[in-house]
Amino acid sequence: MIYLDNAATTKYKPEIVYDAFNYYIREVAVSPGRGSYSLGIKASRMLYQSRKTVGDFFGLEKKSNVVFTKNSTEAINLFFRGFLHSGDHVVITTYEHNAVLRPLQEMKEEGIIDYSVISREDLDKTPSYIYDKYFRTNTSVFATTLASNLTGRVVLNRDYLEFFHKKGVINFVDSSQGAGKIRINMKDDNIDYLAFTGHKDLMALPGVGGLCCKDERGIRPLIQGGTGIHGDSYTNPDVFPEGLEAGTINMPAIWSLKESIDFLKDNWEEIQEKETRLKDYLKNELAKKSNIIVYDDDVEKVSTFAINITGISSDKLVKILDENDICVRGGIHCAILAHEALETVQTGVVRVGLGFYNTESDIDRLMEVLGGTTA
Amino acid sequence: MIYLDNAATTKYKPEIVYDAFNYYIREVAVSPGRGSYSLGIKASRMLYQSRKTVGDFFGLEKKSNVVFTKNSTEAINLFFRGFLHSGDHVVITTYEHNAVLRPLQEMKEEGIIDYSVISREDLDKTPSYIYDKYFRTNTSVFATTLASNLTGRVVLNRDYLEFFHKKGVINFVDSSQGAGKIRINMKDDNIDYLAFTGHKDLMALPGVGGLCCKDERGIRPLIQGGTGIHGDSYTNPDVFPEGLEAGTINMPAIWSLKESIDFLKDNWEEIQEKETRLKDYLKNELAKKSNIIVYDDDVEKVSTFAINITGISSDKLVKILDENDICVRGGIHCAILAHEALETVQTGVVRVGLGFYNTESDIDRLMEVLGGTTA
Repeated sequence: MIYLDNAATTKYKPEIVYDAFNYYIREVAVSPGRGSYSLGIKASRMLYQSRKTVGDFFGLEKKSNVVFTKNSTEAINLFFRGFLHSGDHVVITTYEHNAVLRPLQEMKEEGIIDYSVISREDLDKTPSYIYDKYFRTNTSVFATTLASNLTGRVVLNRDYLEFFHKKGVINFVDSSQGAGKIRINMKDDNIDYLAFTGHKDLMALPGVGGLCCKDERGIRPLIQGGTGIHGDSYTNPDVFPEGLEAGTINMPAIWSLKESIDFLKDNWEEIQEKETRLKDYLKNELAKKSNIIVYDDDVEKVSTFAINITGISSDKLVKILDENDICVRGGIHCAILAHEALETVQTGVVRVGLGFYNTESDIDRLMEVLGGTTA
Repeated sequence: MIYLDNAATTKYKPEIVYDAFNYYIREVAVSPGRGSYSLGIKASRMLYQSRKTVGDFFGLEKKSNVVFTKNSTEAINLFFRGFLHSGDHVVITTYEHNAVLRPLQEMKEEGIIDYSVISREDLDKTPSYIYDKYFRTNTSVFATTLASNLTGRVVLNRDYLEFFHKKGVINFVDSSQGAGKIRINMKDDNIDYLAFTGHKDLMALPGVGGLCCKDERGIRPLIQGGTGIHGDSYTNPDVFPEGLEAGTINMPAIWSLKESIDFLKDNWEEIQEKETRLKDYLKNELAKKSNIIVYDDDVEKVSTFAINITGISSDKLVKILDENDICVRGGIHCAILAHEALETVQTGVVRVGLGFYNTESDIDRLMEVLGGTTA
């Protein structure tokens, strides 16, 4: 089987990630912050170490300022619901995942906030052009995805972040796509809050994501409940990050993330080299086929490709590839604004998402099947 | 090491639970509902099968009406935030976990709802007495824990549920404590919504909980984002249960839960027999020690015990037990109302939580250390 749906989840993980998970569930297997016996304290230390590893990877100045959630969607909801105030305005890009669009749209429909969307055409304009056109006096947050989940386009623009930061705007990055492929540094890149998910490019097991916070103040909880500390207050204690993590956290998955990030750090050059090599190889192969449309082919991107074959529906193409034991995803990809901008709402697209464990021969096999497929 | 903190999390799981998790992450390892290739469809079928297994276990009439969350705290927040309307009133018991109290208190402080708490003294009164004293014309929900996380007391009262149901009130049960020890049947027991967590008595791996819903209508999402279906709408689609599960769900943990519930069903009599045997044994041993206070000793309970030794702080007792390689939790246990009712806010309590993998010799060793400990 050839797995090319890495933009949905990385199916294959480094062996140390499986080992880390199994170590936790066999050898530790207690909840951190819940018991003061030795093993409970060990669990709490492992949690703290995990926070620091994540924070260091993303260039957080206060390395342990990491709130763990179940996935990036929860982290994004936590940020918008917890940070924005009534009357605020948010600027986003047309490449945002539905995990960014939908909480904002819901808050807009509730009459709490409003938001504006930078069009695809404007994304190569200067920061001052964007600022003048889209920002208002009540714009508190600029939210941008690191890379498009649909086309792989690198959307994060450091010049934008620097300019908006100087204007006093809070910069929020959704790093779900690209976090393990593009190195970002929150301090150097002027990022105030960053959401991440473990199970995609970071190559951890499912069940963990989080929010990296430059500032530990100013976020209200999304979920109220037991926090392991200050159990005597009637609402979550104002303690960071525990007050934002009510309920038992998924420590085995968190520990797998700690190990996967160590793996990324230790093998960063090899990962980068392979990412570039496979990306360029597939790009060149696709360019040879005149009946294949590649979306966002002329911009900087990660190794995720949105394609269609003229005259064949994306669903049918997925089926043909599946019959040849190749896994890709078709249809609409949880990024409706991007589909609208690319005019693919009706057709959908086939997404080919490469990952660290793919090889050139996977691409050869894909191209062989695509080459034999015509309308 | 003797692990007696099973009320926090069950450290030891049936082997098939570890096997199920590892099977999923090695052999399947894709996200359900995200890809229409064969393996994606297999994952979706496993998800549906998991829903049905959980729903069947809890006696749901529509077995697959199960929303998966990261833990019971999220499920409880989803229910209160998603079901209650402005002006509603909720009745709870004094034994509710902070996961029930805190979202309600927060919603009360936001001016959305109000709630009343049935006192410890009133919990042996008749349903009509309770109804007349605590319920109002705008009371829409009665929320009760199955068992106390603090003392193990069985709080769920089927007579209450039947009476309130007939009055048109919606019954909500937090089954986090006791779900794998007391069999409940939502249909027979007049339970409309039930929150559960995987990692305690259900003996699954951490990272999964959920909400069983008699009715698939009427709950608004807590989290907005990608749902895998209807990606073209600007907010979560009104589809149950996917519209309430935005973001990638934790399928490996869900599959471990499916297997752990099968284990519970297959071994229910043995589990019940052991639960009763260990519970009675510890109860009798504790009764022999005149300097040990046992809270809620004279009521029906699961095998969780809240104790103190006269003249010794709960924190010190935890430390002494830890030095003897026995894991228990002290202090305040995320159930402030119960601590207030038992007058243990200042002292805290030591909680001894037995589980399926404990033995009589664990209890003997505990009693040996407790017996040698005096103020």
